[in-house]
Amino acid sequence: MISARNFLHVSRRVALAAAGCFFAATLAVAQSDALPSWNNTAPKQAIISFVEKVTKPGSGDFVPEAERIAVFDNDGTLWVEHPIYTQLAFALDRVKALAPQHPEWRETQPFKAVLEGDMKALVASGEKGLVELIMTTHAGMTSSDFQKIVIDWFASARDPKFKRPYTELVYQPMIELLAYLRANGFKTFIVSGGGVEMMRPWAEKVYGIPPEQVVGSSIKTEFRMQDDTPTLFRLPEVNFIDDKAGKPVGINQHIGRRPIAAFGNSDGDLQMLQWTTMAGGPARLGVLIHHTDAEREYAYDRDTEIGRLDKALDAASIAGWTVVDMKADWKQVFKD
Amino acid sequence: MISARNFLHVSRRVALAAAGCFFAATLAVAQSDALPSWNNTAPKQAIISFVEKVTKPGSGDFVPEAERIAVFDNDGTLWVEHPIYTQLAFALDRVKALAPQHPEWRETQPFKAVLEGDMKALVASGEKGLVELIMTTHAGMTSSDFQKIVIDWFASARDPKFKRPYTELVYQPMIELLAYLRANGFKTFIVSGGGVEMMRPWAEKVYGIPPEQVVGSSIKTEFRMQDDTPTLFRLPEVNFIDDKAGKPVGINQHIGRRPIAAFGNSDGDLQMLQWTTMAGGPARLGVLIHHTDAEREYAYDRDTEIGRLDKALDAASIAGWTVVDMKADWKQVFKD
Repeated sequence: MISARNFLHVSRRVALAAAGCFFAATLAVAQSDALPSWNNTAPKQAIISFVEKVTKPGSGDFVPEAERIAVFDNDGTLWVEHPIYTQLAFALDRVKALAPQHPEWRETQPFKAVLEGDMKALVASGEKGLVELIMTTHAGMTSSDFQKIVIDWFASARDPKFKRPYTELVYQPMIELLAYLRANGFKTFIVSGGGVEMMRPWAEKVYGIPPEQVVGSSIKTEFRMQDDTPTLFRLPEVNFIDDKAGKPVGINQHIGRRPIAAFGNSDGDLQMLQWTTMAGGPARLGVLIHHTDAEREYAYDRDTEIGRLDKALDAASIAGWTVVDMKADWKQVFKD
Repeated sequence: MISARNFLHVSRRVALAAAGCFFAATLAVAQSDALPSWNNTAPKQAIISFVEKVTKPGSGDFVPEAERIAVFDNDGTLWVEHPIYTQLAFALDRVKALAPQHPEWRETQPFKAVLEGDMKALVASGEKGLVELIMTTHAGMTSSDFQKIVIDWFASARDPKFKRPYTELVYQPMIELLAYLRANGFKTFIVSGGGVEMMRPWAEKVYGIPPEQVVGSSIKTEFRMQDDTPTLFRLPEVNFIDDKAGKPVGINQHIGRRPIAAFGNSDGDLQMLQWTTMAGGPARLGVLIHHTDAEREYAYDRDTEIGRLDKALDAASIAGWTVVDMKADWKQVFKD
């Protein structure tokens, strides 16, 4: 039998235990709140379970903070890439802005196509035409002058569908994910096929990723003294293409450590996810963002020229990568 | 007149004030103790004054933490580079280790010279011979195999003069300086002409500098799937030479932000110091380590082939860079 005194003790113990449960529940809610724009579906659970595993001291999957490297593709993974890459929109606008100084462009491809808005002729100019567009608009000035051009363009340019600045068309769930990983001791890097100097001027403000953690494609630059002032001059010559098999190369070159988590959305990210998850070592996470939401953003995968997701999608099930269904798994796509 | 009671109060106040001064003095000592291997001469004062200036909130020279980037040359700035670069010692040892598999080397330069210890013939093989040595010993394996080779070599190799592992021949005053800068919110980077993969395996342990903050020269690598395992294969082809005019290029490529402090010791660092200190903006610090101590280390400047300090020394007085006289300004060169 239970005496009144014992009963009191027992109920106190129960009350304390209940309180403990309450606090634990509060804590769990607080933790899951780190990703409020994610629905509570499998991808969110996979991400949280991975982070808890690698950050738990003493667990077999524990990874020291210095080795918690997470890499993110940019176009289509952190922000919108349709109907055309933002960098291409920038190049087209630059051609229009520079056209008055180049009357010959009215009769020369691919510039003629750009000035006449003839997308068919532009596509017909092929990769050669595209490279010429990029070199003409991205080279021939110092790096600091280019930085000013980029900042000015982002301040005024608007996405034609959403009517918002491009830097507002970043995915809110991914912004939360970046912050969540950093709060858990991760160092977050962008590893993008896009030009590194196109991202650095705003990546810190928008993503919380400083310039030294942005890896991307680049053109060659040359050190020059101009009137006793040192400058870096941008040359019309490709230096490095940080895409496909170039991504692991760029990661090794720049970070010098194999990531433990990689996030991408297209076949351009296939080798980055392979390099991250398939070369052995402790627990790894590979994630693909699948664009399935024609209403809130765009729906595309195997049949698009921009951000094609085909081989990587096939590889995901074999390699055990997490595939995020934007429509089903994201409560919200953009910040309100 | 002062009553006994008031007198007591006054003396208590004086005592407290005195104690305050005592603590302030202790604090000042504690701060200057961050660089105990530096004599209290002009270079130490210049460094401390710079750091106090850029870290003081509200001061005209204040620099936000994210922008406190400090770059350090490695050979001759953080560790010994005479009589030959450590990386060259590594290459020579590798030739000897690989020789049994290459009987043809006994009759082919520059390998013959290395195997016979004929330094004159080696020098005569010129830059072409040197590049061949580096490519033969640094390429033709995966990046992770090369990393193992580097780690193993450092574990057993000894400097012929000091009879110590090379990673112990780092300058104690510079180790203190790296820690002092980091304690003041700086992010410290190596920017070296040496191979990036030669430094990364030990830079974190020895300098506290993680792999992603090491910028250096590199050879090309290629992503390859080998039996379903992704690897990076090292090709016998130069990718980037991070020396002289290449250093500002490497800094921009990798860090994407102009440093506010740069430390070097040779003409190979001239453009890095120019880029850091002469392109405008807030307060900047340029420092050259001058090897003046034949007794404790080596004395050399304008007349050496390894780490020549000539043009940069001339530039120092014009540009206002601090020149560290190792003999006069360093209490201690190496850790005991």
